[in-house]
Amino acid sequence: MKTDVAIVGASGYGSRELIRILLNHPGASIALATSRSDEAPTVAEMHPSLRGRIKLKSEPFDADRVASAASVAFLGLPHTASLAVTPALRARGVRVVDLSADYRLKSAATYAEWYGHAHTDPAGLAEAVYGLPEIARSIIPPAGLIANPGCYTSTAILGLAPLIALDRVERSGIIVDAYSGVSGAGRSPKANLHFPEANENLVAYGVGNHRHTPEIDQVLTDLGRKLDPGKPAVEVIFTPHLAPIDRGIHASIYAVPHRPENAPDLMDLYRTFYADSPFVRIVDQPPGTKDSAHSNFIDIAVRVVRGRVVILACLDNLIKGASGVAVQNFNLMLGWPESTALA
Amino acid sequence: MKTDVAIVGASGYGSRELIRILLNHPGASIALATSRSDEAPTVAEMHPSLRGRIKLKSEPFDADRVASAASVAFLGLPHTASLAVTPALRARGVRVVDLSADYRLKSAATYAEWYGHAHTDPAGLAEAVYGLPEIARSIIPPAGLIANPGCYTSTAILGLAPLIALDRVERSGIIVDAYSGVSGAGRSPKANLHFPEANENLVAYGVGNHRHTPEIDQVLTDLGRKLDPGKPAVEVIFTPHLAPIDRGIHASIYAVPHRPENAPDLMDLYRTFYADSPFVRIVDQPPGTKDSAHSNFIDIAVRVVRGRVVILACLDNLIKGASGVAVQNFNLMLGWPESTALA
Amino acid sequence: MKTDVAIVGASGYGSRELIRILLNHPGASIALATSRSDEAPTVAEMHPSLRGRIKLKSEPFDADRVASAASVAFLGLPHTASLAVTPALRARGVRVVDLSADYRLKSAATYAEWYGHAHTDPAGLAEAVYGLPEIARSIIPPAGLIANPGCYTSTAILGLAPLIALDRVERSGIIVDAYSGVSGAGRSPKANLHFPEANENLVAYGVGNHRHTPEIDQVLTDLGRKLDPGKPAVEVIFTPHLAPIDRGIHASIYAVPHRPENAPDLMDLYRTFYADSPFVRIVDQPPGTKDSAHSNFIDIAVRVVRGRVVILACLDNLIKGASGVAVQNFNLMLGWPESTALA
Amino acid sequence: MKTDVAIVGASGYGSRELIRILLNHPGASIALATSRSDEAPTVAEMHPSLRGRIKLKSEPFDADRVASAASVAFLGLPHTASLAVTPALRARGVRVVDLSADYRLKSAATYAEWYGHAHTDPAGLAEAVYGLPEIARSIIPPAGLIANPGCYTSTAILGLAPLIALDRVERSGIIVDAYSGVSGAGRSPKANLHFPEANENLVAYGVGNHRHTPEIDQVLTDLGRKLDPGKPAVEVIFTPHLAPIDRGIHASIYAVPHRPENAPDLMDLYRTFYADSPFVRIVDQPPGTKDSAHSNFIDIAVRVVRGRVVILACLDNLIKGASGVAVQNFNLMLGWPESTALA
Repeated sequence: MKTDVAIVGASGYGSRELIRILLNHPGASIALATSRSDEAPTVAEMHPSLRGRIKLKSEPFDADRVASAASVAFLGLPHTASLAVTPALRARGVRVVDLSADYRLKSAATYAEWYGHAHTDPAGLAEAVYGLPEIARSIIPPAGLIANPGCYTSTAILGLAPLIALDRVERSGIIVDAYSGVSGAGRSPKANLHFPEANENLVAYGVGNHRHTPEIDQVLTDLGRKLDPGKPAVEVIFTPHLAPIDRGIHASIYAVPHRPENAPDLMDLYRTFYADSPFVRIVDQPPGTKDSAHSNFIDIAVRVVRGRVVILACLDNLIKGASGVAVQNFNLMLGWPESTALA
Repeated sequence: MKTDVAIVGASGYGSRELIRILLNHPGASIALATSRSDEAPTVAEMHPSLRGRIKLKSEPFDADRVASAASVAFLGLPHTASLAVTPALRARGVRVVDLSADYRLKSAATYAEWYGHAHTDPAGLAEAVYGLPEIARSIIPPAGLIANPGCYTSTAILGLAPLIALDRVERSGIIVDAYSGVSGAGRSPKANLHFPEANENLVAYGVGNHRHTPEIDQVLTDLGRKLDPGKPAVEVIFTPHLAPIDRGIHASIYAVPHRPENAPDLMDLYRTFYADSPFVRIVDQPPGTKDSAHSNFIDIAVRVVRGRVVILACLDNLIKGASGVAVQNFNLMLGWPESTALA
Repeated sequence: MKTDVAIVGASGYGSRELIRILLNHPGASIALATSRSDEAPTVAEMHPSLRGRIKLKSEPFDADRVASAASVAFLGLPHTASLAVTPALRARGVRVVDLSADYRLKSAATYAEWYGHAHTDPAGLAEAVYGLPEIARSIIPPAGLIANPGCYTSTAILGLAPLIALDRVERSGIIVDAYSGVSGAGRSPKANLHFPEANENLVAYGVGNHRHTPEIDQVLTDLGRKLDPGKPAVEVIFTPHLAPIDRGIHASIYAVPHRPENAPDLMDLYRTFYADSPFVRIVDQPPGTKDSAHSNFIDIAVRVVRGRVVILACLDNLIKGASGVAVQNFNLMLGWPESTALA
Repeated sequence: MKTDVAIVGASGYGSRELIRILLNHPGASIALATSRSDEAPTVAEMHPSLRGRIKLKSEPFDADRVASAASVAFLGLPHTASLAVTPALRARGVRVVDLSADYRLKSAATYAEWYGHAHTDPAGLAEAVYGLPEIARSIIPPAGLIANPGCYTSTAILGLAPLIALDRVERSGIIVDAYSGVSGAGRSPKANLHFPEANENLVAYGVGNHRHTPEIDQVLTDLGRKLDPGKPAVEVIFTPHLAPIDRGIHASIYAVPHRPENAPDLMDLYRTFYADSPFVRIVDQPPGTKDSAHSNFIDIAVRVVRGRVVILACLDNLIKGASGVAVQNFNLMLGWPESTALA
């Protein structure tokens, strides 16, 4: 039996991937798609790769329409736009998987500081569950509102989680040096994303002030305090870069271990930590973004160099970093096996 | 002794390459650069690759300022914008090399038809010399107004010129199937030029209605009528495509020979035809766009397949297709060797 | 109930895509994979993207082993290698889908001429069915040996089939100007496929002598003689090029119509011709290779330019041009809906 | 008056760029080029982009021939091959600029450890001058043997030099996270450099054991001990990655300052330190590799993030990282202005 779902904000790259996955999901039926009125009138016109696969028209958002057509809504909206529609959907009993950042930070003050916009839905914030199944699998099934994690964020968190959860590294001075494919910057044309500018170019941006920083800090800090609430907060030094690839994130992460470590032991530790997580692959060779592109896998390798732990982690920003984990969450919420439609 | 030159419309890719070339020219001094007021205030800020090489500020266009500072002006303006400034510059005695299409078509009516804009400078049109040195070297030196050729145009014309000039092929049914790097579409961000759209993509556009069509027709028709004015007009079937490279045009051109031909004879014919043209290389192997990228060369190979003549031609759209040929024209106009600063 | 299948020659890109598709096929179970002894010992080590999805080891080819394990074998072997294994498999009753070119040309003499190797299996040649469902759907179900079509070939044939089958264009002088992503050249490193050579480059190769030429000629000639055996043979002028994309073929095809045509009528004609073919999309805008990448679709647009019919066709060379059509064939052979596991 | 120079090992990418630069050098004449006998017989055939610019044939290496033809030899040989020819050239009075790593490490033992090959020319090692003008300008002019620096190496050293020379950061725990364009891996086709593998991919390699590590350590250690020989050695944690671009290195470097620092002060410090170095640009915005591609510039930006100094540095691996700095060295050796032929 299929669950009717709505795609709210269907025109972006993440939504395109989400629709593509859901079209093959045995338990989901895309009942409705919304977009701004100035966008293409059908989903297939928005996304030429979906021609011949979906006939759905796109319509302006209307909470009643969504609630009458669907019991789960995926929000593929820009930051702050999710704030505007989530309360109405929740009030009508629609379960929400929000792919924006609007419900990821627990603190409304932190949200306001990093996003430059007051958080207007404290009830939603209190209800929201951070939907990263690999570290929070048990609390997702009953959730009414899922804050779907960011792409850099998932890469960094999953790359570091075993070391933080098991208290093997210092919590300060962790460096996350990460490169993203350009689809991670969205579908709106911008000067720095114009092909002749982005092609053949590697460039850092948002150095020290990218909005995924507080999200990484928060989730790792909480994870690190599970065993001992007195532990200090995690504060990462995060440098994002753009690379001329369509999709994929590569993070090279550096942490100082409490005591000397070696790579084989750490790889074992990672394998054990993620034993129940079907989409985490601990790999012997440095992973390439291409190995996990177009899939829901994250690949992680661990090395020790001159006493420093070096973690190399890759995932597809549009899938494991957005739409794929959204479907993992949907699967957990609806009682489907976690990997349904994803492998 | 250096000639003071002005760059009118300095912010585009073609102007960047032109400035880069002129900075190494022993006979040119860039005295002035103009751009719209909403653009960066210095040339180096517009073009980070030029930092440390040029200190010039950019200023709004003013015909008196240009005329007082420079005796030659290169116009790197969008189509129709050149029409607005050329008469004023010519009236003040400034020699103009116009890199736009505004003076390329001899017929104002044809211009209006293809550019959707009346031609407002008939005197300029009458004065303008089409600046493709390889087929019009002798008339360039005294010119006051040069219509610098288009990038697809030069590729097609130089690829076909020997066959048309020497009347070796039919003038109808010539097919020009060409691919351009994305810089050819300009520096303004657009949806189809957004990196995640253009990357990993090959796509045709402007099929049958690209504005370079009448330019190719006109120049080849005139060339073909030099020996015999009764010859029919050339009408090419031109299909442009975008390819995910920064720069370069590859044209594969198909023509029906009047009588059976073979490749070695045709290659000899081409070598003879271009014996005095230092930037035309007749090559034995199919040329790649990369061979001529960042240079002022055009590479041409000729084959015969099942009786059809197949010409493969490549050039760098920003150099041989724009700024480099502009400097060739400047060299001829000022009495410098044609290849000065270009090899 | 699942059919056990073997992948003979599992290390190439086409086989990787085939395995990826078959892993999601409800009616296929990959029972065995073979490769040369100097290749990686497991399928996942050959193809890092498949880690965590398949545990199969790879083994040297042994006809008895294949016959005992599988009832259908997909051959992902280089040209001429298929000749060496197919008779043994057919003798043991294994149905074969050969992705090489070894059984595509009906004439052993033509094969010897273009592949430089005598055809050693005339019985196989007689038995083989050319597996392009869109033009030969009815004869595929009972086949014991399928010659799976080439990638350029399918693009050209499907682009031209309606015009040839319905006798709307001249059969000589058809131009197929096509660009392929680099994966089409296989997985073995070569100088011209080295990243710094292939990147940022567009270059023709095999001009007038590419091996897909006689295959295109043969299939279109046969198709054109279905209604009238007296029709002349089709002889295409085929120019393949390499483009710096991973996957995808773009063909721009030019044909001379018997009488004046217009694009809307031709688009209708194409839509009718392919009404029962779920993977052919007749599209209004020029298709990009990216629209069909990672899918089994072929996108086709038709234009008329100065009296010439211009067809623009794109497909993914590894899927619709290889593994996907192989699965279409498998589906037809085993009685599954044609699109099973493909959309 | 021109100096006759020889290019020993002319077939690589670095040599191609070197030849291109020297062709425009007013004080150099390329008298001779050598390569292995299985390579193309002329320089233009090795490097199609140089067709029409150089007529030189290539010949096998012969020390007497080189010495009779040239007074300066540039060695574009693989590691260990330079060892085999340098003593013979030096014995004949030829000044050598070696672009390989063979004379970069002062300790023969360290060389043997990292390159797996005994160092057979201790006299050469004693004579060699490490040719990075920005930190050793004064000792280059009289040199008979220049060890031209590595590409990653120059990026890291120039990125860190002011902080180390002026003792502003800790010498341990420095992280150099760097990405290189594929041309940095040389011209020989290899599996991981095959276009379909390298394209759309970001991947680390040589983690903790790349051969540029001891070179970075050595040069920075020496620089740091200039003022105080008792200072500890620099030991960098260096992670190289491949990115799908032709050329360019992007290094993101992390160092712990001795006391709190701020970015504006550090930028000033860098500008002062490099005031006499025409090819170092201290830039306000994060530099992209594209800004310095095809040029001899290195661009450096400095930030402070959560107390950590973050340096972003980019250069063109084939020019500022190889051929361009070789010409800087040549200019200093022959008494030409340092930037001759380079800007």
